[in-house]
Amino acid sequence: MSKKPLILITNDDGVKAPGIRALISYIRPFGTVVVVAPDRPQSGTAHAVTIAHPLRLEHISNETDYEEYSCNGTPADCVKLAFKIVMRRRPDFLFSGINHGTNASINIVYSGTMAAVLEGALAGVPSVGFSLNSYSLNADFGPSEQFVKSIVTNVISEGLPQGVCLNVNIPDVSVEKIMGITLCRQAAGTWQEDFDEREDPNGRKYYWMKGVYVQTGNAKDTDQWALEHNFVSVVPVQFDLTANGAMELLRKRF
Amino acid sequence: MSKKPLILITNDDGVKAPGIRALISYIRPFGTVVVVAPDRPQSGTAHAVTIAHPLRLEHISNETDYEEYSCNGTPADCVKLAFKIVMRRRPDFLFSGINHGTNASINIVYSGTMAAVLEGALAGVPSVGFSLNSYSLNADFGPSEQFVKSIVTNVISEGLPQGVCLNVNIPDVSVEKIMGITLCRQAAGTWQEDFDEREDPNGRKYYWMKGVYVQTGNAKDTDQWALEHNFVSVVPVQFDLTANGAMELLRKRF
Repeated sequence: MSKKPLILITNDDGVKAPGIRALISYIRPFGTVVVVAPDRPQSGTAHAVTIAHPLRLEHISNETDYEEYSCNGTPADCVKLAFKIVMRRRPDFLFSGINHGTNASINIVYSGTMAAVLEGALAGVPSVGFSLNSYSLNADFGPSEQFVKSIVTNVISEGLPQGVCLNVNIPDVSVEKIMGITLCRQAAGTWQEDFDEREDPNGRKYYWMKGVYVQTGNAKDTDQWALEHNFVSVVPVQFDLTANGAMELLRKRF
Repeated sequence: MSKKPLILITNDDGVKAPGIRALISYIRPFGTVVVVAPDRPQSGTAHAVTIAHPLRLEHISNETDYEEYSCNGTPADCVKLAFKIVMRRRPDFLFSGINHGTNASINIVYSGTMAAVLEGALAGVPSVGFSLNSYSLNADFGPSEQFVKSIVTNVISEGLPQGVCLNVNIPDVSVEKIMGITLCRQAAGTWQEDFDEREDPNGRKYYWMKGVYVQTGNAKDTDQWALEHNFVSVVPVQFDLTANGAMELLRKRF
C-alpha cells in the first residue's frame, strides 16, 4: 500500500459543480483521491438514502492517484457505495463540498454535503465538509483555497476525535477580507416555511418552497456570527441528538 | 377558537400506512386533528426538502374536527405545507408515525418520521415521533395504543421544553410483555454499508442497498437497550449537533 493517504471526495451539488472541482484541485496533492459524487444536484436531500430503487455507478476517469465516479443516488449513498464497492475499504479521510451555499446554523440539518460527512464519521473516517456562503453557480472559490488547504493539512496530520466531524463554512469575500479560521458552535436559527402558490394550466394548485432564514441567537461563539464577520467557521459535529440538558426535567415525567 | 388543541399528524410511510391510521385513531379524541402525510412511502428520506420540483396537496377528507391531506413531498415538506398552507398557523402539537420500523439509535439520522418531528420542534411546536420495532406492513399496532395515549396525554398537559422533541420507540411484543415507559439517551450504533451487486439485461451493473446494524454501545440507559428489553423508550432530541465535548481539544488546533 502506498504511504499516501486514501481520500474520498464527494458533495451534494453534483460531480460537475464548480465547488467540487475546486475542492478536487486543492486536495489532489495530499494523496490518492477517489471522487464518488451525485450525477446531478442533490441539494436539500439531507441524510436521505436510496432503498426503493437500485443505484448505479459511472466510471468517469482514472489517472495516476486519481479516480472519479458519478452515482445516481444521494450523497449518503455515494459514501456507502464508495466504501463498499469502489474502494472496498474505508478511506483514510473524507472531504465533502465545496458546497454552493452556507451550511452554518440549522442548514446542517438539510444538508447533503454534511450528511456525507456524518456518514464518514459514523464509519470512523475523519471527515470534513466545506461550504461557501454563496448559492451562485458562478461563485468565486479562489479565496477558499488557502483555508481549505490549511484545514485539510491539520486534519491529515492530527486526525479527529472518534465520532466527531467538522462543518466548515467560508465567507464569500475576497481573501484579504477573511479574518482567519475560528472554532465555534452551531448557531440557533430556523428556516421559516414559505411557499409560492401557483396554478397549472389545468387549474390545479401547486407550491414552490421558498423560505426565510430566521436567526434566533447571535452569540459571538457561533458559526453564523463568525461567517457574518468574515471568519471561516469550524464547528465540531456529532450524531448523538440526545438533548442531555432536558433529561433531568423530563425524568420526573417519564 | 375552540378550546380543543389543534394537532398535526404526519409520517413517512405514507398516508395509507397502517401505522398512521392507528395513530390517527388514538389521537382524534384529544383535539382537532389535521393529517398532512406523504402520498407514498418516504422511508429513508431523512430531512430532505423538495426544492427542485413543485409540491401538491390533495384533500382527502373533511369531517367534524378532522381533515386529511396527502402531499407529493417528503415528511419535512408535509409539515411546512401544513403550517403555512393548510392550517395557516402553527398547530399546538405535532405527532408523527407510527413508523413501521425502529428509529432508535442511529436510525434517527435517516428517519423521515423524526425529520417531521424536528421540523415541528424548530417551529416551536411540541412534537413527538412514534415508531414500532417492526418493519412489517402487517405489524400489530394494538399493543402500542395505551403507551401512545399515555405519552400524548403527558405532552398535551405539560408541553415540552423549548427546542426539545421526543423520539419514542415501542417494542413489537404483546401488551403484557411491555415493561413500561423509560426515558433514555440515543444508543451508539451504525448501519454498516452493504450492497447486492446485480446485472441488468443489458449487462450493466446495479446495486441494491442493504445494511447491517452494528451496535457500538449497549449501556442500560440507551434506547436500543430499552427496546431490546421490552421497554417503550423515550429520548429527548435536539437539533444542535455541536460536539461540545470535543471543543476544548480542538481549540488548540483552530
